[in-house]
Amino acid sequence: MVRIEDIANKLGVTKSTVSKALNGAPDIGEPMRKKVFETAIAMGYKKVIKKVDSKIAVLIRNMSYKNTTDFGYNLVLGFRQMAESNNIKVHIVDATEELMKSMDYDVFMLQNDYIGSFVIGFSLVDRWTKQFKTCKTPTVLYDNSSKGNTKVSYVGADSREGMENAIAHLCDLGHTKIAYLGGLLGSHYSKERYEGFKFALRQHKLKFDKELYGDAYLVSDCVSKHLSKVIEKGATAVVCGHDLLAHEVIAGCKKMGKRVPEDISVIGFDDLLISKDTEPPLTTIKQDCLQIGRSGYYAFKSLLDDVPIGTILLHTQLVIRNSTEQVNLGEKND
Amino acid sequence: MVRIEDIANKLGVTKSTVSKALNGAPDIGEPMRKKVFETAIAMGYKKVIKKVDSKIAVLIRNMSYKNTTDFGYNLVLGFRQMAESNNIKVHIVDATEELMKSMDYDVFMLQNDYIGSFVIGFSLVDRWTKQFKTCKTPTVLYDNSSKGNTKVSYVGADSREGMENAIAHLCDLGHTKIAYLGGLLGSHYSKERYEGFKFALRQHKLKFDKELYGDAYLVSDCVSKHLSKVIEKGATAVVCGHDLLAHEVIAGCKKMGKRVPEDISVIGFDDLLISKDTEPPLTTIKQDCLQIGRSGYYAFKSLLDDVPIGTILLHTQLVIRNSTEQVNLGEKND
Repeated sequence: MVRIEDIANKLGVTKSTVSKALNGAPDIGEPMRKKVFETAIAMGYKKVIKKVDSKIAVLIRNMSYKNTTDFGYNLVLGFRQMAESNNIKVHIVDATEELMKSMDYDVFMLQNDYIGSFVIGFSLVDRWTKQFKTCKTPTVLYDNSSKGNTKVSYVGADSREGMENAIAHLCDLGHTKIAYLGGLLGSHYSKERYEGFKFALRQHKLKFDKELYGDAYLVSDCVSKHLSKVIEKGATAVVCGHDLLAHEVIAGCKKMGKRVPEDISVIGFDDLLISKDTEPPLTTIKQDCLQIGRSGYYAFKSLLDDVPIGTILLHTQLVIRNSTEQVNLGEKND
Repeated sequence: MVRIEDIANKLGVTKSTVSKALNGAPDIGEPMRKKVFETAIAMGYKKVIKKVDSKIAVLIRNMSYKNTTDFGYNLVLGFRQMAESNNIKVHIVDATEELMKSMDYDVFMLQNDYIGSFVIGFSLVDRWTKQFKTCKTPTVLYDNSSKGNTKVSYVGADSREGMENAIAHLCDLGHTKIAYLGGLLGSHYSKERYEGFKFALRQHKLKFDKELYGDAYLVSDCVSKHLSKVIEKGATAVVCGHDLLAHEVIAGCKKMGKRVPEDISVIGFDDLLISKDTEPPLTTIKQDCLQIGRSGYYAFKSLLDDVPIGTILLHTQLVIRNSTEQVNLGEKND
């Protein structure tokens, strides 16, 4: 257990200076404050926080987007329910570019007395994402893995299982030429879903065919660049990396004079609220965000208890609606 | 909520018959007892069990082996600690061939009033392993995945992360020709570790070379069949699927006149108690069984709470001892 005295000795300053710096007293200058925090973190110092005052940060990137979808809302809700029923307060923090530039992640957490955080919507290139590899604060990442740090856990949907169920469903319907369209492989979840798709094909003795694959950063680009190509190459079904892309694929098929599901079957991933109301309603791999949020708390609790859980994957569920049907190998419709 | 009355109506018998059958009364014949249990399970019936009477089964295959190693002991200990501190009793059950033949898994659990189970040491061909795909009792499997059933969770070490750390360590030491020896790919953990090895090579821009791979059911066969071959093909390091195999690989190297680590580096997986005492002490990927046992309880708790956690993977830790060293590309020693 590192004490304030140890930090003071290390820095050759008084205990009172260290204590004031850690508690944000106005008479400590910025350079000293910074030095104290960095030394405290390097030495593994933890503030003693009364159980009743415990609080966790939910760090959200792209706050405005995440706040207005049921998706992000449910993630936070699930986490909050579990934390609050365990008497831990939850603060929502907008993790802006500026905040991340202004100080290191561990310093921010220590300075604000957070015992840990649940992290949503960070990209692989965000400044703090790199710091999660070595941070000392218990941290749970949603859909953004960081291997090798026993203070960090990852929670998300089991993409492999989801893709296995989707491919099994398409195989039952007689499809063998199955295309995959998705986002760029720079993000963690895009990579996982794509790997899951290839794994599921292997499980069903189908070969992965590069000509039936396409990705792009923008949904509209992905459809305009790749959809007609994969259909020309004979795809009778398209599995999409996420629901919004699946909606555009359905629209794209219609524009090309292809009927969904009569000519082309389409499957999404997520089960957004809107996916039951598209025309036709979308068959999709559901990830239950409320439950993922809850599991985030199990992961967090394990880190607090020094049980080094690295990954929690939740079961997904294939929701079968009307965008998938028996393969149509008869006369073409064009 | 299915009631005794519902089962009685379904079967056209009295409530008292159903109740007696479920409670093992001696005046109910075996055929009726069986019919009642099967119907109850199919209808999703759950016995009302007072919280103070809750008990979980720890099902162990090959009881004698598992009981005498610290490995199995710690798994059970970790699980028991967590369960008992949550006021749930833990019963150890020897899951013999005979028991599995005598009745279905769900029937056994319902008949004995278990609220769920933690399953250790089952193989892919065991009779109950197949039933885990569709069972209705909350069930946590150690190192034996069963995808797609929301009543079943899997807990184990993160093989991918472990292999990544091992390969990173060997790369730091200058090794590029790295062999892999393991058990047959029929068991879940063998498959996971082998896949993890290949994944880790890719992360380090090394190509998987089939000539540097070998597997066998028996440890001794694996060494006698493959060790000299992979060394002839130029391997300077051997990663092993588990510690017992690594010990035999070290012995095999010595027999061939190769020094470990001067000529050949060797890495194991598990960190068994004995691995610190081999000559040389073994560098190995440690999985912490006590913590895995504890995590088994987190998974179990989530299933009880209807949070569908499918997989929990624990961080591993590379324990660097003396069986690995800087690659030796100088004059050969033979």
